[in-house]
Amino acid sequence: MEIQTPDWVKHAVFYQIFPDRFARSKQPRKRLLQNAAWEDWEAMPTLQGYKGGDLWGILEQLDYIQDLGINAIYFTPIFQSASNHRYHTHDYYQVDPMLGGNPAFKELLDAAHARNIKVVLDGVFNHSSRGFFFFHDVLENGPHSPWVDWFKIEDWPVSPYNGEFPANYVGWDGNRALPVFNHDNPEVREYIMEIAEYWVKFGIDGWRLDVPFEIKTPGFWQEFRQRVKAINPDAYIVGEVWGDSRQWLDGTQFDGVMNYLFAGPTIGFTAGDRVVMEQVQSRDYKPYPPLFAAEYAEKIERLLKLYPWEIQLTQLNLLASHDTARLLTIAGGDKASGELATLLLLTFPGASSIYYGDEVGLPGAIDPDSRRGFPLEANWDREIFQTHRELIAIRHAYPCLRTGDYKVLYAQGALYIFARVLATEELIVAVNVGTAEAKGNVDITSLNTQPNKLLYGAAEVEWSVEGESRNLTLTVPPRSGSIIGVG
Amino acid sequence: MEIQTPDWVKHAVFYQIFPDRFARSKQPRKRLLQNAAWEDWEAMPTLQGYKGGDLWGILEQLDYIQDLGINAIYFTPIFQSASNHRYHTHDYYQVDPMLGGNPAFKELLDAAHARNIKVVLDGVFNHSSRGFFFFHDVLENGPHSPWVDWFKIEDWPVSPYNGEFPANYVGWDGNRALPVFNHDNPEVREYIMEIAEYWVKFGIDGWRLDVPFEIKTPGFWQEFRQRVKAINPDAYIVGEVWGDSRQWLDGTQFDGVMNYLFAGPTIGFTAGDRVVMEQVQSRDYKPYPPLFAAEYAEKIERLLKLYPWEIQLTQLNLLASHDTARLLTIAGGDKASGELATLLLLTFPGASSIYYGDEVGLPGAIDPDSRRGFPLEANWDREIFQTHRELIAIRHAYPCLRTGDYKVLYAQGALYIFARVLATEELIVAVNVGTAEAKGNVDITSLNTQPNKLLYGAAEVEWSVEGESRNLTLTVPPRSGSIIGVG
Repeated sequence: MEIQTPDWVKHAVFYQIFPDRFARSKQPRKRLLQNAAWEDWEAMPTLQGYKGGDLWGILEQLDYIQDLGINAIYFTPIFQSASNHRYHTHDYYQVDPMLGGNPAFKELLDAAHARNIKVVLDGVFNHSSRGFFFFHDVLENGPHSPWVDWFKIEDWPVSPYNGEFPANYVGWDGNRALPVFNHDNPEVREYIMEIAEYWVKFGIDGWRLDVPFEIKTPGFWQEFRQRVKAINPDAYIVGEVWGDSRQWLDGTQFDGVMNYLFAGPTIGFTAGDRVVMEQVQSRDYKPYPPLFAAEYAEKIERLLKLYPWEIQLTQLNLLASHDTARLLTIAGGDKASGELATLLLLTFPGASSIYYGDEVGLPGAIDPDSRRGFPLEANWDREIFQTHRELIAIRHAYPCLRTGDYKVLYAQGALYIFARVLATEELIVAVNVGTAEAKGNVDITSLNTQPNKLLYGAAEVEWSVEGESRNLTLTVPPRSGSIIGVG
Repeated sequence: MEIQTPDWVKHAVFYQIFPDRFARSKQPRKRLLQNAAWEDWEAMPTLQGYKGGDLWGILEQLDYIQDLGINAIYFTPIFQSASNHRYHTHDYYQVDPMLGGNPAFKELLDAAHARNIKVVLDGVFNHSSRGFFFFHDVLENGPHSPWVDWFKIEDWPVSPYNGEFPANYVGWDGNRALPVFNHDNPEVREYIMEIAEYWVKFGIDGWRLDVPFEIKTPGFWQEFRQRVKAINPDAYIVGEVWGDSRQWLDGTQFDGVMNYLFAGPTIGFTAGDRVVMEQVQSRDYKPYPPLFAAEYAEKIERLLKLYPWEIQLTQLNLLASHDTARLLTIAGGDKASGELATLLLLTFPGASSIYYGDEVGLPGAIDPDSRRGFPLEANWDREIFQTHRELIAIRHAYPCLRTGDYKVLYAQGALYIFARVLATEELIVAVNVGTAEAKGNVDITSLNTQPNKLLYGAAEVEWSVEGESRNLTLTVPPRSGSIIGVG
């Protein structure tokens, strides 16, 4: 079987938006809530509070998003849900009324598409919420409910709210707020397939799948792919799998996963011993221990061999998400760590994904703090913002950064150098994570060109050619990275 | 102000359907549930069980309904709800998936309209359910919820499920399953108005309003009427008010109410001392004590003076509903009581409403028993069925039965005689509730014709004319009624 993944993803720079926290609309709109007492936008987020961000707010910020260089948005869940993160789905067919409902989403989707910005939604299909209609009926009617077999009921009565009694049904991760679907029931399976189809027909460009590894029903994700791709062969299917994902990346299921196997080593390399362990140690990825360049190279090369190349090109590479602390906070506030990691992100094969706010230096510890309101312009870190804009622009300018081969050229001490090569286009990327200037000398006979023009950064570039042998000497200032192209 | 009510209602014979119990579709349909373990159709209903009736089932029975002479259907609630009666609304915009969802309803609505059958839905706008999204958010997030002011929260935490703690919010009739809306909140008011508008735009022909007297917000029902009628001036608005309803029948709110003020005396007169008190005594209408003809006449004449005539013509007259025991059971199984009451119903001004199954002699004590599955044809009482068919046909044949004046001619002992008069069309109706033959002699100088043709029943009709004076002598067999027209 030849693996096929959507071309547009290979060229995408995603922006991950947590809808309650990105922007509250300013223009008059038809709203259910006129005078809601939102949680203060600037205050530290709470587990239960809403800040009132909405889809119209995002619509009003599309200029900003486009100007940043974004051409795809991944939204954490937008369906009706009684939780600010909306992972507790109450209705899979309704966009949350606080966000503006289905009409606002349609408007946003059309506006995004008019700008050639793709839109991917978060599909939470392993479990629903205890308010979800079908589970609610089980709660209200017990064994009389015709929906009993849609969940994993173990005994009666079920107790979704009273922790003094056993829940008597399977909740995700033991959480009784999240009743797990019985995917082995063909009715449930069909129900979920139709949700997926509905929104693809509605116009979305793909699904990010929440905890898909929990669904073990044979053929489930294969059918999901077939049915989604039958409607839109270009729809992107990306799973939330934190570790080795070969099982799902055989070409019959997902086009990619959230690439925490990239995030971990990249943070471990760029932030090194700056990493604040309490922000990462309980999580399913490993931005630790600190890595030297050789170790980083080894991990990256192993990662690049793990999946077929066609899959590599549609991985969703990221440094942070709503499920992690923000990079700046993980690195103890060290901006250079962020810059270097971002450089590595935007020069890596696969789609890059920027977690909203990271591009303006928003800090945030593990959730709920990592889900702060997007800062007022006065509070942006302009330098971080410009870095992002610049690196995204470079990625868009050079196809080799998206689909070119990845060749490690040098990995010693704190200095890591690699090339991205697509036909005659060749770029060299160098990252020095050390606090001292680093000099690397590389024999680059295999390259066809002699990149010598600094596209980004402040490295010194020297080429020496002797017969067949061509040597590149890069002198990279401390805690900095450079991209070098052909002048 | 001139009171205006919808003309079609004046000519309507309604059929009240409890959707879970009328018919389960037999044809293949796209269903969420393929293998549901429904409660046995023939078994006594339970409080929590579903029998799986659906809207397609009703669609498949439209021939039957039309053949019976029905030209309007009032559905008890059809919106998504975790209760078999569906008064606990979970979503006002979704027809319950068990019933077939919005697509099935659209199909049924179109098919009904194609047969000139109107469709009225049940609107439960005083309260929602504890699974209703906006309340669910309050439950999940407590004071953090932006929807707090949509309900009548009194303290924290709310306890919708654990009866050991105070509910801490107002539930209808003290029922914590039914959180009452805060109608004084303009957001809530607007939300409800838009639901009403949505379904009228969708194509329904009116709203039956559940416990509308509970909503005391000034102007609420006036606005409701204005907004509904702005979309469809012919939409019917009928309130569930059991007693004196003058407050709502001033022409600015409802077109009529469920006319339990008709049902009570009519049952008290026709069933008399057969009435089984435990089936009626705890209810809000009074089919007792037994009435003689003169007492019945007095109550009917008082009722006919209570509201403007234009309202009388659009009252929803009924003998039973999902909220009462069935007539046959109230009368201890006496079929003649049912026949006589039905005759009085179908000769009364205002729309007649038949509670599904009553037309085939389905018995049923107060709920849940009054909500049995519609019987298999083999179990129909053919005589009762023919009586209904015949009386409905007569009503349709004679406009005076719908919009003619109502004149009591005779009311003595067990014999009650009245005329319905519309211009030159005159009918005489006689009901003898006694167990002996009854003879009545009436001077009917005021009539223009001399009705002498038996349209229904077995009375003997004799006219004697002496000069200006015209006398009618009716001899009515025991426990029978007759309708007499011009031969």
